[in-house]
Amino acid sequence: MTDYNRADLVALAAEARQRAYAPYSQFTVGAALLGRSGKVYLGCNVENVSYGLSVCAERAAVFRAIGEGEREFIAIAVVTENGVTPCGACRQVLQEFNDGSMEVVVADAQGRSRVYTLAELLPAAVIPADLKQG
Amino acid sequence: MTDYNRADLVALAAEARQRAYAPYSQFTVGAALLGRSGKVYLGCNVENVSYGLSVCAERAAVFRAIGEGEREFIAIAVVTENGVTPCGACRQVLQEFNDGSMEVVVADAQGRSRVYTLAELLPAAVIPADLKQG
Amino acid sequence: MTDYNRADLVALAAEARQRAYAPYSQFTVGAALLGRSGKVYLGCNVENVSYGLSVCAERAAVFRAIGEGEREFIAIAVVTENGVTPCGACRQVLQEFNDGSMEVVVADAQGRSRVYTLAELLPAAVIPADLKQG
Amino acid sequence: MTDYNRADLVALAAEARQRAYAPYSQFTVGAALLGRSGKVYLGCNVENVSYGLSVCAERAAVFRAIGEGEREFIAIAVVTENGVTPCGACRQVLQEFNDGSMEVVVADAQGRSRVYTLAELLPAAVIPADLKQG
Repeated sequence: MTDYNRADLVALAAEARQRAYAPYSQFTVGAALLGRSGKVYLGCNVENVSYGLSVCAERAAVFRAIGEGEREFIAIAVVTENGVTPCGACRQVLQEFNDGSMEVVVADAQGRSRVYTLAELLPAAVIPADLKQG
Repeated sequence: MTDYNRADLVALAAEARQRAYAPYSQFTVGAALLGRSGKVYLGCNVENVSYGLSVCAERAAVFRAIGEGEREFIAIAVVTENGVTPCGACRQVLQEFNDGSMEVVVADAQGRSRVYTLAELLPAAVIPADLKQG
Repeated sequence: MTDYNRADLVALAAEARQRAYAPYSQFTVGAALLGRSGKVYLGCNVENVSYGLSVCAERAAVFRAIGEGEREFIAIAVVTENGVTPCGACRQVLQEFNDGSMEVVVADAQGRSRVYTLAELLPAAVIPADLKQG
Repeated sequence: MTDYNRADLVALAAEARQRAYAPYSQFTVGAALLGRSGKVYLGCNVENVSYGLSVCAERAAVFRAIGEGEREFIAIAVVTENGVTPCGACRQVLQEFNDGSMEVVVADAQGRSRVYTLAELLPAAVIPADLKQG
């Protein structure tokens, strides 16, 4: 499948956001990742007392999808209070499983959204084949 | 619930291991995390071309459980070829949601297992309250 | 200072690369980070048996620079066998201390290089102020 | 060398702590890592707007030491306001280069300290050889 309803995906990300564990930043994030199979995988940010062990919602969604056997992605929606874009680490983790063509829908709590391709957010990306060449 | 069948949890972890994405290390790991609700959450390791963006199976399971609204854990089973224990990062992520009493069942591919409490694996742990005191 | 010699910075990164600890990937990386003060900070990748605890050369250089009191950066050079770009995590860590105008010089073992600005590598970046708005 | 002055190492960690970049947690940490060569490597925590990209002081010190060619460690001192122990991730990164016998000196801002071996803080650790067996 390649078509999907952006508003629906954003709504699922907003739902996932409600389960965020963010006692340190109070900044809650939800993500909904649409796989090639048509299934949607949710994730929220999970912080840690050792900040560096925190995970973002986007990566949590990817890890869950891989754990369920999905390997290809069509789009991801990310919802925060103010509509920030995914961090560089999340862009790279998405890149591991995508050629850059997937859509990244970034929405704020009022439902305003912007749409990027992954390639727009992570140009000149290092990709799995690069390591094998090294 | 506090009782559970260790062999069943190990079997679920072994199943999760089959979906590991480990093209760099070829070292596949599966985890099955038992929540207070009685539900089990699976996770596998998901590696990345930028090695530092890889996640272990144990953490993937925790992130999934939190994303589904679970906040307390009874036990985790971890299965690898040779039965290695969780890394320090995973111990710390488990600690975020536990007082150290949860069980950590470590099994190899032949089904041989050892059982620890989290406190045995992460003594003198930094805990969420420590940060608030800082 | 804002002027610098790219070839000199690449040479320092190549030197740093010799101290990489990369027993798992065999993929060695060196970085040389030029601070506003004119001082250069070196870093190499440091891998870990738990892959997710590995650090890239670029981040190692940033952490070192911050540890020495530097807070603003002019440029970074990164040297690998095949001239790959920094991963998304490293781009984000550089972004924490820069407005996107710093140069990122990517070189291979034969000395061929390309130059980007950080903004070219991490468009529409999440920045520190975003979190405060959240 | 195997002898060292704990108070001196703690004093160096306290000095390193002054350069911590901790705008999100306000929790500053300093570390001083003593290498086999007798040289001491300093590190501080460096946080990031994407919390998971933060690094702890202990790991920053290890990355710096490796970057300077040191490979074996005698002791590390860590100073925080309230004397918390290293997180699990830092314990694992230290373990990569040590058999567990190194000392970990944990001190608070008043200079009160406790001393552990790394093995006490990370029992039954996964070690580099485990991966090769996998």
